[in-house]
Amino acid sequence: MPELDLTASSLDLTRAICDIPSVSGDEATLADAIAAAVGVHPHLEVYRDGDTVVARTSLGRAQRVVIAGHIDTVPINANLPVRDIENDGEHYLWGRGTVDMKAGVAVQLKLAAELAAPRFDITWMWYDHEEVDADLNGLTRLARTRPDLFAGDFAILGEPSNGTVEGGCNGNLRAIVRTHGVRAHSARAWIGANAIHAAAPVLGRLAEYRPRDVAVDGLVYREGLNAVRILGGVAGNVIPDLCEVEVNFRFAPSRTPEEAEDHVRAVFDGFDVDVVDLAPGARPGLDAPVAQDFLAAVGGEPRPKYGWTDVARFSAMGVPAVNYGPGDPHLAHHDEERVAVAQIDDVERGLRAWLTSS
Amino acid sequence: MPELDLTASSLDLTRAICDIPSVSGDEATLADAIAAAVGVHPHLEVYRDGDTVVARTSLGRAQRVVIAGHIDTVPINANLPVRDIENDGEHYLWGRGTVDMKAGVAVQLKLAAELAAPRFDITWMWYDHEEVDADLNGLTRLARTRPDLFAGDFAILGEPSNGTVEGGCNGNLRAIVRTHGVRAHSARAWIGANAIHAAAPVLGRLAEYRPRDVAVDGLVYREGLNAVRILGGVAGNVIPDLCEVEVNFRFAPSRTPEEAEDHVRAVFDGFDVDVVDLAPGARPGLDAPVAQDFLAAVGGEPRPKYGWTDVARFSAMGVPAVNYGPGDPHLAHHDEERVAVAQIDDVERGLRAWLTSS
Repeated sequence: MPELDLTASSLDLTRAICDIPSVSGDEATLADAIAAAVGVHPHLEVYRDGDTVVARTSLGRAQRVVIAGHIDTVPINANLPVRDIENDGEHYLWGRGTVDMKAGVAVQLKLAAELAAPRFDITWMWYDHEEVDADLNGLTRLARTRPDLFAGDFAILGEPSNGTVEGGCNGNLRAIVRTHGVRAHSARAWIGANAIHAAAPVLGRLAEYRPRDVAVDGLVYREGLNAVRILGGVAGNVIPDLCEVEVNFRFAPSRTPEEAEDHVRAVFDGFDVDVVDLAPGARPGLDAPVAQDFLAAVGGEPRPKYGWTDVARFSAMGVPAVNYGPGDPHLAHHDEERVAVAQIDDVERGLRAWLTSS
Repeated sequence: MPELDLTASSLDLTRAICDIPSVSGDEATLADAIAAAVGVHPHLEVYRDGDTVVARTSLGRAQRVVIAGHIDTVPINANLPVRDIENDGEHYLWGRGTVDMKAGVAVQLKLAAELAAPRFDITWMWYDHEEVDADLNGLTRLARTRPDLFAGDFAILGEPSNGTVEGGCNGNLRAIVRTHGVRAHSARAWIGANAIHAAAPVLGRLAEYRPRDVAVDGLVYREGLNAVRILGGVAGNVIPDLCEVEVNFRFAPSRTPEEAEDHVRAVFDGFDVDVVDLAPGARPGLDAPVAQDFLAAVGGEPRPKYGWTDVARFSAMGVPAVNYGPGDPHLAHHDEERVAVAQIDDVERGLRAWLTSS
């Protein structure tokens, strides 16, 4: 088993854990190394569930914060082992997982070992299967088996956010809009009814749709309604009897999932709409005193998170949660995935400052 | 090898050749049986090319007619062997190939054997691979190796036409209309450009399109412009960068292929249009004296053929051609394919009357 030196720099720790491949489903080696490395610290009580490792302090502090990061990555595409590169005079660590999100995990591991007496009690969570179906997500499993471990006054996900605080997240709905027709030979089209032609107003409404910008607790969320897939047709000489348009609605956290569904059904009024996936958004939760204190400690202007992240899970459990981690989210999953080393240092400094200030 | 008795009734001959399965690519057994059965007749000179059998008289007549039928079928779907059924008091032969087009071939085989001294010289053609790509069609091959065999003053294809004369055929064009965009994560759709939304006007123009009815040489052809396939999308969380709409234009034989292509490009002006298949139509050719004589002999009102058939091939070679065969074309390729026995007899009588009148 590879050994992790948690006294190394966050950069070196990032290198070490990126070079232990851990594509979703294959996290065991890394989870073993993490459990072993944090297990030697007497101030941490370690709990293992599958390839999720939880390490908690129990110092009797007035408040508890949860700090979490997933340890899996999307598939490797000839972008491991990591290497140091320079781009426009900036030093980057290049390779799969550097952005999403092992640099964030490295900072967390280092601070978990170092901070024997933080100002809050801390529940550290490093979990598996974030990059795949929500059913498989380590936090989904843990919320079922040990919901008590999610207790806290505030939560931080180390998802890449360019080292700034990104509050809350948009909700996410996927639906299939279907149009129907009657099959016929295309040489005698008048006998049938063309389901693809019937989808013209569906695409028309999408093309004309003007998404809202919505202010929620002081942050502005951009919504979006988009076709992500369209499929219709039987054969080159057949009038098609079915056309399916899959639409994706990213909605501001001020809408409930039910309101989001009502909105999509209203947009496609008159059509057959089948909602196939619906995840709530998360309000930024930046008005809580502990959140304000966090913002003051790490500095910078908070921003909205557009993509869905596990902060929504904490939010749904009543724990205000934000994203805060090194790395440009636009480079997540990219073949040229790379994290600016300065951002790793910034996040380490920001978290340490907040967790140790008095 | 199964033996065919060409003195049997057309109905019994239809039974016999339907029960020799000959799905496209698997016509050898039937072609062997046909070549052997016509080969015993001294008035016929037989030529074999792959699984195409040509049998010709050479009586020195002033005119020559070509009478042709394909011997392959679409795949069997638990609808062989054939059986006799009754439907609303009408006697049908049920099973794969009965309509498309072995009843027509049976009539042709019977008359080829019987008519040792017809009023015209006759070139009979029974060919393979009509139900698949035109590249594989036995007539495509024969036109390359023995174009002289297509010489004639008139041609009859025994394609199912309900025992009436169907003149000419519509042309057939297929094209891909593509719209382009820019990929992006669907949580940040404003960074990308949605190619499926860009296809809204393509479907809009199709939905609004009003096809023409066009009179050609006294027959009215209905045109049609239809989407037959649409495809777009990368993943459930990605703004798609490409959408493809496959359109099928069935055009009256008064348009040349070039004019048909110009028309489709005009309809989709401003879009990327890629013509992938283009077959000319065939004018009905019913004004030729030999055609008028044929119409008078078989009786009934001629009608336009909407679907593309091999008559267009003869038409392009300067030989006026019509479809004339037993069977309802709507039942071709149908799992309940069945031919009205009365239509087999009618077509046999009609052809014999014309070929033997003086």
